[in-house]
Amino acid sequence: MLVLWSSTTIPELSEFLWCDKVKQLLEKNEKGHVVATCRNPDAASGLLHLKNRFAERLSILPLDLTIESTIEASAKSIREIFGSLNLLINASGILSIPDVLQPETTLTKVEKSSLLLAYEINAVGPIMVIKHMWPLLKVGGGFGTERDVAVVANLSARVGSIGDNHLGGWHSYRSSKTALNQLTKTVSVEFARKKDPIICILLHPGTVDTDLSRPFQRNVPEGKLFTKEFSVQKLLGIINNAKKHDNGKFFAWDGQEIPW
Amino acid sequence: MLVLWSSTTIPELSEFLWCDKVKQLLEKNEKGHVVATCRNPDAASGLLHLKNRFAERLSILPLDLTIESTIEASAKSIREIFGSLNLLINASGILSIPDVLQPETTLTKVEKSSLLLAYEINAVGPIMVIKHMWPLLKVGGGFGTERDVAVVANLSARVGSIGDNHLGGWHSYRSSKTALNQLTKTVSVEFARKKDPIICILLHPGTVDTDLSRPFQRNVPEGKLFTKEFSVQKLLGIINNAKKHDNGKFFAWDGQEIPW
Repeated sequence: MLVLWSSTTIPELSEFLWCDKVKQLLEKNEKGHVVATCRNPDAASGLLHLKNRFAERLSILPLDLTIESTIEASAKSIREIFGSLNLLINASGILSIPDVLQPETTLTKVEKSSLLLAYEINAVGPIMVIKHMWPLLKVGGGFGTERDVAVVANLSARVGSIGDNHLGGWHSYRSSKTALNQLTKTVSVEFARKKDPIICILLHPGTVDTDLSRPFQRNVPEGKLFTKEFSVQKLLGIINNAKKHDNGKFFAWDGQEIPW
Repeated sequence: MLVLWSSTTIPELSEFLWCDKVKQLLEKNEKGHVVATCRNPDAASGLLHLKNRFAERLSILPLDLTIESTIEASAKSIREIFGSLNLLINASGILSIPDVLQPETTLTKVEKSSLLLAYEINAVGPIMVIKHMWPLLKVGGGFGTERDVAVVANLSARVGSIGDNHLGGWHSYRSSKTALNQLTKTVSVEFARKKDPIICILLHPGTVDTDLSRPFQRNVPEGKLFTKEFSVQKLLGIINNAKKHDNGKFFAWDGQEIPW
């Protein structure tokens, strides 16, 4: 099984999170090979550390979600080295960056630049990655899993649900994840129509104890702040057991579907 | 009643449509005053023609959705001249522009520039207008109507519904309208929490016989291609009868709610 793990363009914020996930992917899929991407591999110390441990089964490629040519170059490398791809996980996402992007608490704080930045990273980026990896995914299946389809798993978030939006706020993050949901659904319709052995799903990881969530953890109900290991284990379970009829669906960490 | 009609930034494409709507607004609300905005009033011949007929009750202001300072300047003018606003209709929207933006028929044709442009005009623009008009809308009500709340009506589209997306395609337009739906819902939650006498609603006008829809009309079922007059009449009916509990909802031209 070949897995492409497409990271955020802001590795400082989530490197710890996804390095941990890459580690679990390698540990749980003993015969799998993982291609992890990030903007600047030389500075990704967590990934380089993993590379020491899983030398033969981990490749690191440079990819900046905001620069389409780097996505194309990654797709070309993967095609030349591996020929195909069984799983694509789009784990990129930004919520806050000091002095640049803050989750908005009121409409008066909503800025055009924040809306556009969140949209570019959280919605446009993953779709551009799918666009270029699509030909590689047509191999379908997932060696060592129950699946007979290749999977594209886009990390979304429950706050991207419109029907579940009772709190308001977080305009940029929310609407970018909602747009990602619609784009993923749109892509899933085309995969089904073309009878490609690929499905697209959306995943809500829950609130995970990471740097990204730390400023917002005080509002998390008791027992609902997950360790990285717990969340990753749940999400990989959903991915590995995904069936054709799951195409285009939006799942929480516990397998429950989330309303649009 | 004071109505602000915020137009698209591409008046060439929809001028005919919204001029007709402005005309109906003026005809149906005899004591109302309409502020119509567009990028370049001097070139808006349809609006200037109306201005000849409804001199006292129509104001035309320059506003470019993509330039926040022009939105602020319009809000300032309205505050100085009228003091408040009872209805804001965000009728802006782009679907296709020759050589710039085409509704995508497949993922392979999706371009980052198209996604960002549609998002900027169809989702970000209307929210920026609401942000700056919000203080003016706190007056509530709508003289000559049944309403006791001010209304923000954002023109969305059924293709923005994720749950109703069975055809795929039109990635840029679809996801921008979906994002607009989420942003409108988010704003509606804040209006309710602050007990402002304002509601936000989303409207699907149906497929209307305009230049915008002309290239796509062949797929419209018989009897479902509406005249501008019919669609406008239906939408104004929904707006004029809107109640507080309609806040944050997404209505089709016939008053039916559309799933997210």
